[in-house]
Amino acid sequence: MDQRIKNRELRKKITTPQKAAEFIKDGMNIATSGFTPSGYPKAIPLALAEKVKKTGEKIRIGLLTGASVGDELDGALAEQGIIAKRYPYQTNKPIRDRINAGETAYADIHLSHFPQQVRYGFFGKIDIAIIEAAAITEEGNIIPTTSVGASPAFTRAADKIMIEINTSQPLELKGIHDIYQLQDPPSRKPIPLTKPDDRIGYPYIPVNPDKIQCIVITDIKDNVRPFAPVDETSRKMAGHLIEFLQNEVKKGRLPQNLLPLQSGVGSVANAVLLGLLESPFQNMDFYSEVIQDSVFDLIDAEKIRIASGTSITPSEEGLIRFYNNIDSYKNKIILRPQEISNNPEVIRRLGSIAMNTAIEVDIYGNVNSTNIMGSRMMNGIGGSGDFARNAYLSIFTTPSTAKNGDISCIVPMVSHVDHTEHDVHVIVTEQGIADLRGLSPRERAEVIIENCAHPDYKPMLRDYYRRAVENGGHIPHIMKEALSWHERFLETGSMK
Amino acid sequence: MDQRIKNRELRKKITTPQKAAEFIKDGMNIATSGFTPSGYPKAIPLALAEKVKKTGEKIRIGLLTGASVGDELDGALAEQGIIAKRYPYQTNKPIRDRINAGETAYADIHLSHFPQQVRYGFFGKIDIAIIEAAAITEEGNIIPTTSVGASPAFTRAADKIMIEINTSQPLELKGIHDIYQLQDPPSRKPIPLTKPDDRIGYPYIPVNPDKIQCIVITDIKDNVRPFAPVDETSRKMAGHLIEFLQNEVKKGRLPQNLLPLQSGVGSVANAVLLGLLESPFQNMDFYSEVIQDSVFDLIDAEKIRIASGTSITPSEEGLIRFYNNIDSYKNKIILRPQEISNNPEVIRRLGSIAMNTAIEVDIYGNVNSTNIMGSRMMNGIGGSGDFARNAYLSIFTTPSTAKNGDISCIVPMVSHVDHTEHDVHVIVTEQGIADLRGLSPRERAEVIIENCAHPDYKPMLRDYYRRAVENGGHIPHIMKEALSWHERFLETGSMK
Ligand SMILES: CC(C)(COP(=O)(O)OP(=O)(O)OC[C@H]1O[C@@H](n2cnc3c(N)ncnc32)[C@H](O)[C@@H]1OP(=O)(O)O)[C@@H](O)C(=O)NCCC(=O)NCCS
Ligand SMILES: CC(C)(COP(=O)(O)OP(=O)(O)OC[C@H]1O[C@@H](n2cnc3c(N)ncnc32)[C@H](O)[C@@H]1OP(=O)(O)O)[C@@H](O)C(=O)NCCC(=O)NCCS
Repeated sequence: MDQRIKNRELRKKITTPQKAAEFIKDGMNIATSGFTPSGYPKAIPLALAEKVKKTGEKIRIGLLTGASVGDELDGALAEQGIIAKRYPYQTNKPIRDRINAGETAYADIHLSHFPQQVRYGFFGKIDIAIIEAAAITEEGNIIPTTSVGASPAFTRAADKIMIEINTSQPLELKGIHDIYQLQDPPSRKPIPLTKPDDRIGYPYIPVNPDKIQCIVITDIKDNVRPFAPVDETSRKMAGHLIEFLQNEVKKGRLPQNLLPLQSGVGSVANAVLLGLLESPFQNMDFYSEVIQDSVFDLIDAEKIRIASGTSITPSEEGLIRFYNNIDSYKNKIILRPQEISNNPEVIRRLGSIAMNTAIEVDIYGNVNSTNIMGSRMMNGIGGSGDFARNAYLSIFTTPSTAKNGDISCIVPMVSHVDHTEHDVHVIVTEQGIADLRGLSPRERAEVIIENCAHPDYKPMLRDYYRRAVENGGHIPHIMKEALSWHERFLETGSMK
Repeated sequence: MDQRIKNRELRKKITTPQKAAEFIKDGMNIATSGFTPSGYPKAIPLALAEKVKKTGEKIRIGLLTGASVGDELDGALAEQGIIAKRYPYQTNKPIRDRINAGETAYADIHLSHFPQQVRYGFFGKIDIAIIEAAAITEEGNIIPTTSVGASPAFTRAADKIMIEINTSQPLELKGIHDIYQLQDPPSRKPIPLTKPDDRIGYPYIPVNPDKIQCIVITDIKDNVRPFAPVDETSRKMAGHLIEFLQNEVKKGRLPQNLLPLQSGVGSVANAVLLGLLESPFQNMDFYSEVIQDSVFDLIDAEKIRIASGTSITPSEEGLIRFYNNIDSYKNKIILRPQEISNNPEVIRRLGSIAMNTAIEVDIYGNVNSTNIMGSRMMNGIGGSGDFARNAYLSIFTTPSTAKNGDISCIVPMVSHVDHTEHDVHVIVTEQGIADLRGLSPRERAEVIIENCAHPDYKPMLRDYYRRAVENGGHIPHIMKEALSWHERFLETGSMK
């Protein structure tokens, strides 16, 4: 423990997860570390869930995290009905089910907005912050583990702080983090970051040690997720995308090594990054949120010069590989607070190429990334809006169909909008690519239908569009039919 | 002319509007000054329209502006069928009619994105920039008139530049402008602006004199618009909004003098600003796009310390008042390129309070600001997205009904989305205010219906929501009925 907790006074605060969980009361706002199943506290939430399960005590809390967290937190607490309110992102089945049942009030918030809104008090007071740490310094500051997320904002805003020292996380993580904290308006200064590799902050989260309520020691590992193997559909999407980027370089609209890449989460995003391995691009910069397996491949192949994000979320093999080479990866990877990794100021300045995934897109270029059939929450907008809205180029990928072809991912009108027509430059499906820049809605409809839709649905889309045009208007629609494809799917199980 | 064109060589380039118009050929991209009927060229476009009308010559161009321009440009050219493509914003009836008829391809683009996308080449080559100027300096640089807009980007990107010296614009405008130009990625630096009154650039638009093709002298005045008198509805909205802001100050979430205000355009926005005249707030900063009459009132009453924008668009009386006191207003008003006035970096840093107008909002907090009944373009998103997306607080105002009560501006689902649920914090109608911060969609529906909807439509909204909840889901909807109110209006002329 000497290495893990250098501050002697603080060692006195070590307690059990059970005792720590006692501090969590009904009605509290609990804010935790963790970003895309990585670096979230596990022992205290498991103890809390266990206690509620045993005693049947009514404890309902607001749970605030950086982004999604693992089953030991979201899952365990949701299953005991402990989560009354949830912000700003999740990807966990038990809690998703409760959200969709209306039992947990979920507000789906841009990840760059969230930390400052916490400080501004938009969600009320933060009672306790629970932060997973690799170590605590002499001065009582926190060395985070594999994610930074919103932890700096949480420790600043919270009344009390609990720390979970996770001994499964290597001490060598020290030095990978770059914690820069923003002042709030009207005293905010420019963020002095002009290249993805700039280090502008501290290697730890500064903490007032008086706020530390207790410390728990644990060795429970992050519940990391395997990636789906790259399928033919994803390979084709990656191919179209890389061809497009090569063409932009040829036209002089992008430098040889591109501009800093952002990549969304999920299998499609992973496949696209793997596609870059075989591309001619060299010396690329990665300025994104989440660093997944494919980024290690790109670093090893010397395709990526530097990767900046707010969390590392590899598969199990990816994690082993990272830990085995941690000292060399530390020169190529920087973990920042999500308020910096996703900051519009930085994204706009760097000129990011944003690549995110859609659930469905419509013929006019609007994107739904969150709500299946307009209603059922999948994950949330996450950081996709932060990047799409401020990027140099905003690209969305989606297979042209879902559910074995019963759903067309290109529809007359999306059933929910996360990214408006104003924020979508390029759409990629396995069928092809639609470059929407400078096009009017009518022009967009033609290229999206012809280039991106699945052949099974093209005639139906052409028919809708042709009849809509008879109604006239800038964005031709038939109000009666615009959502009829979704209606049909809900009634018959197929959009056909 | 000695005062207006200090560079002797350039005086040789003076020509007639007719001769200048001869340079404009079919297929060209023409980019002009002008932002919200202010500071746009008039003589050359009028000459071009006249020529086409007389000769019947086929000339179809792409027209790029800062934002909306007056009838001498959009109107005159649209009426002759000259505008094939139009970017990024308009508010003019003749061109709007052509857009809605599908004869002009209009792409509605965030105003802060537009200048950089022009430079990036997203719209192809810019053949000619036509810029209205108060004067040309010794070195050949341009002193703009009452707007800056995208002119610096246009003169940088264009092959050739035409200048319209407008002698109706006072020479005293010199010194009001602050022209800071951004480098493009990967060499972009932080924008060194931390307070609305910081001056960070030149008082003129730097121009390469070799690019200047010709100069035209004119005295045609801007076609400014009168404001609708403030009605009871607007007065009530302003009242709710000010009460809300006072409460935020009381809660310690806003300083006494608020944070920099942004205000949208139109009658409602003007009324809200006038409401601030009677508020207790002092010493406010205004960091916005457009400076309209009410801002002069607020400056005169010493309510506003500084007003930063990209254009001055007062009524006729407002303009006279401005010109009569130009030297004193010059200390309180700064005009910047729209790439700076609307820049996400600056808006986020300053912590803007964004106040924009909606056409309709839905019970879950999505906002439509552009397309009537999902299809018919009104104006465009303008800068509302730049501000709403990056503000400290994003507020939307709308009367609860339109068209004498036949339309509810609160609907089950908006027919077009410009501002997603993620970007809308507060909704204000004359009925009341809905503070959506931290609320889940279901919680939002309840406060929006109860606080903001018109009593005539409340029962119908409650009924829709209640039945939708039976379907479950994070955002309860009935796909079959979500747009049925719009359908009903289109069929019967009323949503009732
Ligand atoms: C959009 C998103 C859900 C796609 O994830 P993915 O793993 O690449 O996509 P998949 O193709 O596996 O689809 C996920 C599920 O949605 C379903 N789906 C996909 N398109 C659908 C559609 N149009 N209608 C209904 N369901 C659809 C799939 O069938 C699959 O369902 P299953 O889980 O029951 O098998 C995911 O990228 C996401 O949550 N994005 C938003 C957040 C984000 O972009 N973050 C990045 C920056 S943080
Ligand atoms: C939304 C916007 C059109 C409102 O303008 P306004 O002058 O305040 O609003 P009004 O109440 O006068 O409404 C304008 C028209 O829309 C109509 N309208 C309003 N709500 C409507 C609705 N829900 N359905 C149909 N029509 C509606 C009004 O009846 C009026 O029609 P008319 O011109 O035929 O009389 C205007 O603010 C806008 O264009 N905003 C987008 C751009 C922007 O926000 N810029 C600010 C930063 S640049």
